[in-house]
Amino acid sequence: MLEILAFDADDTLWHNEPHFNQTHDKFRNLLADYQDPEWVERRLIETEIRNLKHFGYGVKGFTLSMIETAVELTEGRITGDEIEQIIAFGKAMLNAPLRLIDDVPEVLNTLGKHYDLMIITKGDLFDQETKIARSGLAEHFKYIEIVSEKHPEQYRSILQRHQIQPKSFLMTGNSLKSDVLPTLSIGGHAVHVPYHTTWIHEKVAPELLTRHTFHTVSKLCELPALLEKLQQS
Amino acid sequence: MLEILAFDADDTLWHNEPHFNQTHDKFRNLLADYQDPEWVERRLIETEIRNLKHFGYGVKGFTLSMIETAVELTEGRITGDEIEQIIAFGKAMLNAPLRLIDDVPEVLNTLGKHYDLMIITKGDLFDQETKIARSGLAEHFKYIEIVSEKHPEQYRSILQRHQIQPKSFLMTGNSLKSDVLPTLSIGGHAVHVPYHTTWIHEKVAPELLTRHTFHTVSKLCELPALLEKLQQS
Repeated sequence: MLEILAFDADDTLWHNEPHFNQTHDKFRNLLADYQDPEWVERRLIETEIRNLKHFGYGVKGFTLSMIETAVELTEGRITGDEIEQIIAFGKAMLNAPLRLIDDVPEVLNTLGKHYDLMIITKGDLFDQETKIARSGLAEHFKYIEIVSEKHPEQYRSILQRHQIQPKSFLMTGNSLKSDVLPTLSIGGHAVHVPYHTTWIHEKVAPELLTRHTFHTVSKLCELPALLEKLQQS
Repeated sequence: MLEILAFDADDTLWHNEPHFNQTHDKFRNLLADYQDPEWVERRLIETEIRNLKHFGYGVKGFTLSMIETAVELTEGRITGDEIEQIIAFGKAMLNAPLRLIDDVPEVLNTLGKHYDLMIITKGDLFDQETKIARSGLAEHFKYIEIVSEKHPEQYRSILQRHQIQPKSFLMTGNSLKSDVLPTLSIGGHAVHVPYHTTWIHEKVAPELLTRHTFHTVSKLCELPALLEKLQQS
């Protein structure tokens, strides 16, 4: 029997990746006089992923990666004014209005009557906390867990800390790599809710999915009906 | 009766502020051809504190503040090479060897026989987690709490979550502002272990301290004897 429903936050409860995509666009435009936009894009993604080991996830590390890429791609000719614009791109992301995904409050309201709800989100602590506060959703959740990475050990540690059995735990999120596969690997249940755009670092090779059983819904509002069906079966 | 001993981490369990001070020195030197070092220092501190509301605490936000200050103080004449050096300062801080403060493992070993130990540290999640891992101290602690701010509400929430009575809780740390005063304000006990250098943002006006009762030890190795005396009185 399911008891705990956990949810990813970015691109599951609220829109996030579009802010990154829009900032990638702004960054390519900013450097358009120096370099080919496709090359800028490729180098920014490479720098971002290479810097994860220094910075972890989140907007601050991404902003530093934009600055590093800009200096490299302009061979140091980037101007102070352009650097200031990149810092402003980062601050704009941190302060961007938070847009909930359709039907989220209603779905949480319905499910909260039958289950304990949890958020498990990865990223900058400060940034994620302010997003949770701005979302107005905190009251729905019994547990809020902000982690630096979503590997199986982080899920195992959260479940142990709260004395939750994996078989009573279901994780819902948009990332196969961070939400679905690690939860399955520790014996929990998972629901995939695809988001229309996925960061390349979160993409999973299709062959990794063939051995696994999980559920997919196209929108979060389909989750209550799916859970009702699962509990009856 | 005391049951839980909580410890701050930066400048209580390991050295941290000297990395920031050394980086301030490097930054002043980098800009020495553009501006007077004292002015650079003052403007960097102002930018750091002004940006806390965007970035929170930690090295990544500090690095962005250095870049922002450099652009402003050079009126945009900062070179790409100098920006790269600032990013390298930040990465060097993130990867700096972690030096434990004297006697920390022995003190934790002694106290862990009689109390449950906890870390409460504020800052970047990713950065604090890697420091805790590199410290080799994690096994001493029953609870590890990384928070974005150390106001009374964060302490209250941690104690509630673990069902800890404030009167059984003692917080030890180098910051009067972040460790001692908020713990006292929620009814807990506190021990101050001054560190030889304090970030200006953590300083407290002396008159704020007069109404409070807390203990001070000059070194962490004096803590076990102090606790023994307290438990007997």
